[in-house]
Amino acid sequence: MATGGVPIREEGSGGSRRPRAGVVTMRHDHLLTAKQLSRADIEAVLARAREFADDPAAHADRHPGALLALCFFEPSTRTKMSFETAAKRLGGDVIDMGAVEDSSVKKGESLADTVRVVEGYADAIALRHPSQGAARMASEFVDVPLVNAGDGAGHHPSQTLLDLHTIAENAGLDDLTIGVMGDLKYGRTVHSLAHALTNFDVRQHFISPESLRLPRSVRYDLHEAGANVREHEELEAVLPELDVLYVTRIQRERFPDEEEYEKVAGQYRISAETLDAAKDDVAVMHPLPRIDEIDPEIDDLPNATYFDQAHNGVPVRMALLDLLLEDGGGDE
Amino acid sequence: MATGGVPIREEGSGGSRRPRAGVVTMRHDHLLTAKQLSRADIEAVLARAREFADDPAAHADRHPGALLALCFFEPSTRTKMSFETAAKRLGGDVIDMGAVEDSSVKKGESLADTVRVVEGYADAIALRHPSQGAARMASEFVDVPLVNAGDGAGHHPSQTLLDLHTIAENAGLDDLTIGVMGDLKYGRTVHSLAHALTNFDVRQHFISPESLRLPRSVRYDLHEAGANVREHEELEAVLPELDVLYVTRIQRERFPDEEEYEKVAGQYRISAETLDAAKDDVAVMHPLPRIDEIDPEIDDLPNATYFDQAHNGVPVRMALLDLLLEDGGGDE
Amino acid sequence: MATGGVPIREEGSGGSRRPRAGVVTMRHDHLLTAKQLSRADIEAVLARAREFADDPAAHADRHPGALLALCFFEPSTRTKMSFETAAKRLGGDVIDMGAVEDSSVKKGESLADTVRVVEGYADAIALRHPSQGAARMASEFVDVPLVNAGDGAGHHPSQTLLDLHTIAENAGLDDLTIGVMGDLKYGRTVHSLAHALTNFDVRQHFISPESLRLPRSVRYDLHEAGANVREHEELEAVLPELDVLYVTRIQRERFPDEEEYEKVAGQYRISAETLDAAKDDVAVMHPLPRIDEIDPEIDDLPNATYFDQAHNGVPVRMALLDLLLEDGGGDE
Repeated sequence: MATGGVPIREEGSGGSRRPRAGVVTMRHDHLLTAKQLSRADIEAVLARAREFADDPAAHADRHPGALLALCFFEPSTRTKMSFETAAKRLGGDVIDMGAVEDSSVKKGESLADTVRVVEGYADAIALRHPSQGAARMASEFVDVPLVNAGDGAGHHPSQTLLDLHTIAENAGLDDLTIGVMGDLKYGRTVHSLAHALTNFDVRQHFISPESLRLPRSVRYDLHEAGANVREHEELEAVLPELDVLYVTRIQRERFPDEEEYEKVAGQYRISAETLDAAKDDVAVMHPLPRIDEIDPEIDDLPNATYFDQAHNGVPVRMALLDLLLEDGGGDE
Repeated sequence: MATGGVPIREEGSGGSRRPRAGVVTMRHDHLLTAKQLSRADIEAVLARAREFADDPAAHADRHPGALLALCFFEPSTRTKMSFETAAKRLGGDVIDMGAVEDSSVKKGESLADTVRVVEGYADAIALRHPSQGAARMASEFVDVPLVNAGDGAGHHPSQTLLDLHTIAENAGLDDLTIGVMGDLKYGRTVHSLAHALTNFDVRQHFISPESLRLPRSVRYDLHEAGANVREHEELEAVLPELDVLYVTRIQRERFPDEEEYEKVAGQYRISAETLDAAKDDVAVMHPLPRIDEIDPEIDDLPNATYFDQAHNGVPVRMALLDLLLEDGGGDE
Repeated sequence: MATGGVPIREEGSGGSRRPRAGVVTMRHDHLLTAKQLSRADIEAVLARAREFADDPAAHADRHPGALLALCFFEPSTRTKMSFETAAKRLGGDVIDMGAVEDSSVKKGESLADTVRVVEGYADAIALRHPSQGAARMASEFVDVPLVNAGDGAGHHPSQTLLDLHTIAENAGLDDLTIGVMGDLKYGRTVHSLAHALTNFDVRQHFISPESLRLPRSVRYDLHEAGANVREHEELEAVLPELDVLYVTRIQRERFPDEEEYEKVAGQYRISAETLDAAKDDVAVMHPLPRIDEIDPEIDDLPNATYFDQAHNGVPVRMALLDLLLEDGGGDE
C-alpha cells in the first residue's frame, strides 16, 4: 500500500485509446507497443525468456536460417546488439540496413518503400525510427512480423518486456512496490513500463522534480487503467518501502542553464549511502547508458541490477522473436 | 514490331569492344558486366534463380561456411542487403569491409591492395566502387570470384540479371515489347539492360526528354548488336503496345534550375490514370528507390512489379553466388 | 651474429614492468599484450594456427554458436575483418558494436559500462580503442575473454602473433636475422614484435632515421630481455644478412614540412633493385596498409610476403579464439 505522495486522480479527455489485445500468443502479429500485450501475453514472453535465460546458447537449432532485418534509422548500441545476439542464439541471423547516411533513405526513399523492400529479404523486421508512430505506419505495409525497437517519443516494447522480466526475476510482479525516479516527463521507457505494470498488483511511486513529472496524458492513462500510483519530489519519503528502485537519466539538454541542471540532477543521484535507508535487497535498475545517476560504488553491491537488466535483453528478445517466428520457423 | 518513334541507325567509330563470352557456366570467373554473359549464361542464372525463388529458405545447406566479402566503397542499401541475404540463404555468411571512412582506404591504401588482402579472408567478393572500371581492375588482382556490384557510371550486372528475371517471370523474354522511360542518359541500369535484351526477341522503346536520351555510344552499341530499338519523347505513342514499362528516376541535379526540372520530370511520372491507356497486364518496373516517378496509388494494382523486382535480388544473387562458388562449395 | 650498427646498451630506470606469464595455455585469460605470452604460449598459438591455415574452411563445427563481440572504438579494416572471418571459420559469429558515432559512447557511457553490457551478449570480446591501457582497464570489468585488438600507442598482440607466424612460416624463428625498417618511434607493431622475438634466437636490426629510432624505453626493455639488437641509419650495411625485412610506413604527419618528409621517406622505400643486394629468399613483410614504402613491382616477386602476412590474420586469430574459448566451446 502506497504511503504519502500525491495520488493521481485526473479528469480530462481520454481521447480514443486502443483496446487491449486479448490474444494469448502473438503469432504472426507485429509488436508495436507494450500496450497491446495482455497480462497473459506478458507472462508467455517472460516464461519463455526464463527458459532461454537458463541457457542462452542451447537453442541454436530453434530457428535455423531465420533472418531478422535490423532497420535502425537512429543509433542504438544495446538494443541493436541484443536483437542481433537474440537472432543468432536462436540459430538465425540478421541483415543490417546500416546507417541512414549510407542508405537509400538519403536518396529520399519513403519508410514505406524501404520496409516493403526489406520484407522481401527477411523473416522479421526490427525497426527503430526517430518519428513517433513510424513503426505502426511501417507495419501496415509489411506481412512479416515487425517489432518496434523504439519510435522517438513513442514506444519501445521490448525494453518494457526486459524491464518486466528483470523485475519478475528480482522481486516478482505481484505485491510489488516500485519507485521510478528521474526524468519522468520525456522517458518513454518509464511511460511504457508504468502502463505495463497496471496488469499486475503493483504500487508505483514516481519521484522527480516538478518540472519533469509524468505528463498529464500518462497520468490520465494510468488512472484509467486503475493503477496504484503516487508522485513525490523526494526519494526519502518512499525509499524504505521499495522493492525496486528504477533510476533514469535527467538530461542536461532539458534545462535552460548548467547551474539549474546541476542543482536538480544532484538530488536524483544515488550512492551506496543512499541505499542505507532502503530495504536490504532493493533492486536498483537503470535502462542504461548512465552518466552519473548511479555511483559506480553501487556496481559491486548485490543491489546493482542494471547490468543484468541489459543482459536480459537477449533472452527476452529471443522469446519475442521465437513467438513472432513460431509459424515460420515451425521446428519444435 | 515497334511502331513509330525514331529507329536507331548510327554510324560512328565503334572502338574496340569486348567479345561476348561463350561460356555456358560461369565457374570460377568474375562477373564484371552483363555484356560478358551469353544468352545461355543468362538462362542458366535465371533457371537457377527460379529454383531458389520457389523456396528461398530451402537451400541453407548449399554453401555452408562460404564467406562473401562485401566491399562497398559507396553506399547501397538494397544491393548490399540482398547480397547479404543471398549469401545467408545459401548457408554462407558475409564479412563486411564497412564504410570507407572507417577503412584503410582512408589511410591511402590502393584498391588493388585492399582486394588482395580481402581475398585471403573470403571465398568471393562483391565490390561496389564509385569509379568506372574499378571492378575490372580489381578482378585482375584476385583469384576468388569477384562480382561487380556497381562501378560508378559503368556496370551493375546483378541488377541487370534481376531485371531480366523479373521481366521473364512477368512477361517472358521472347516476343516482348518493353518501354524504358526516364533518365536514359545517365542510367547505367538502363544501358546494361538494353544490351542484355539484345540476346532475346525484344522490341525496345526508349522514352525520355531530348536532353536525357540514350548516349550516342549506347545507341551505337545496341545498333551493332542488332537491337530492335526506337526512341520517343512521349509515352502516349507507344504505351498501348508495352508488355513492360520500366520507369527510372530523373535526377534533379541534372537540371540547371528547379523550374526546368519540374517541367520535365512531371511529364515522365505515371499514375493509375496513365495506365488506363496501357495493356491490362502491363508490368510496371523501377529499380528503386523511387521518389515520385510512380504514384503510390499504383502500388496496390497488380501491375506494380517494382517490389517483386527488388525482392528478386535475393534469388538472382543466390543463383549468381551459387554458380560462382560451384567448385568451391562443391556440395551438390 | 649481428655485424656493424650500434648495439643497444642503455642504463636508465626500468620502472615496474609486468612479469612474464608462465602459463602454457591461455584458457579463460584475456590477451592484452604480447608480453604476457611465454615462448610456450607463442608456440602453442602458432602450432594451432598452422593447423587452421592448412584448411581454414575445415573447422566450421569447432565453436558452433560462439559469439565474438567486435568493439572497435576506432576504425580498422583488416583487423576487424580478420577477427570476423576467424570467428566465422570456427563456426561462430560476431556481433558488432558499430561505429562509435552510432553508439552509446556518444551519449557519454564509460568504457567499463559498455564492456559490462556487451559481456552479457557475447562469449568473447575483441576491443580496439584509441587510448593506451584501455584494454587492460576494460578487462578488469569482464569475465569473458577479452582480446586487445589495439589500444592506441599501446599493444596489439594478435598483430604480433600473426607477424611471428609469418616469420615462422617463411624463415623460421630460430637462428634468424631480421631487419625492421621505417618508423620505429611510433610503431607499436614494431615494439611488440621486437619484444616477442626476444623469446627466440634472433638477431634484430633496426633501420631508421635518427629522428624515428626506437624510443629509449623500448631499447631499455629489449636490453633487459637480453635481446640481440643493433640500430642503423642505412639499410645497405645490413641488408645482405637479412632473412626477413620488415618495412613500416613513415608517416607524413610526423614531419614539420613536406620537403623534410620526402627526403627522409625516400631513403626508406624499397624497390626490386633494392633487393638485388639481399639474400635471394629474403621475406619482405609489411603490416599494411602501405602507401609507397614498397614498390608494387615487388608484389609479383616470391619475396613479397605482406599479403600472406595479412591473410595469416585469419588462422592466427582462429587459434587465439580457439584457445580463449576452449572451455566455453568444449567441443573437442
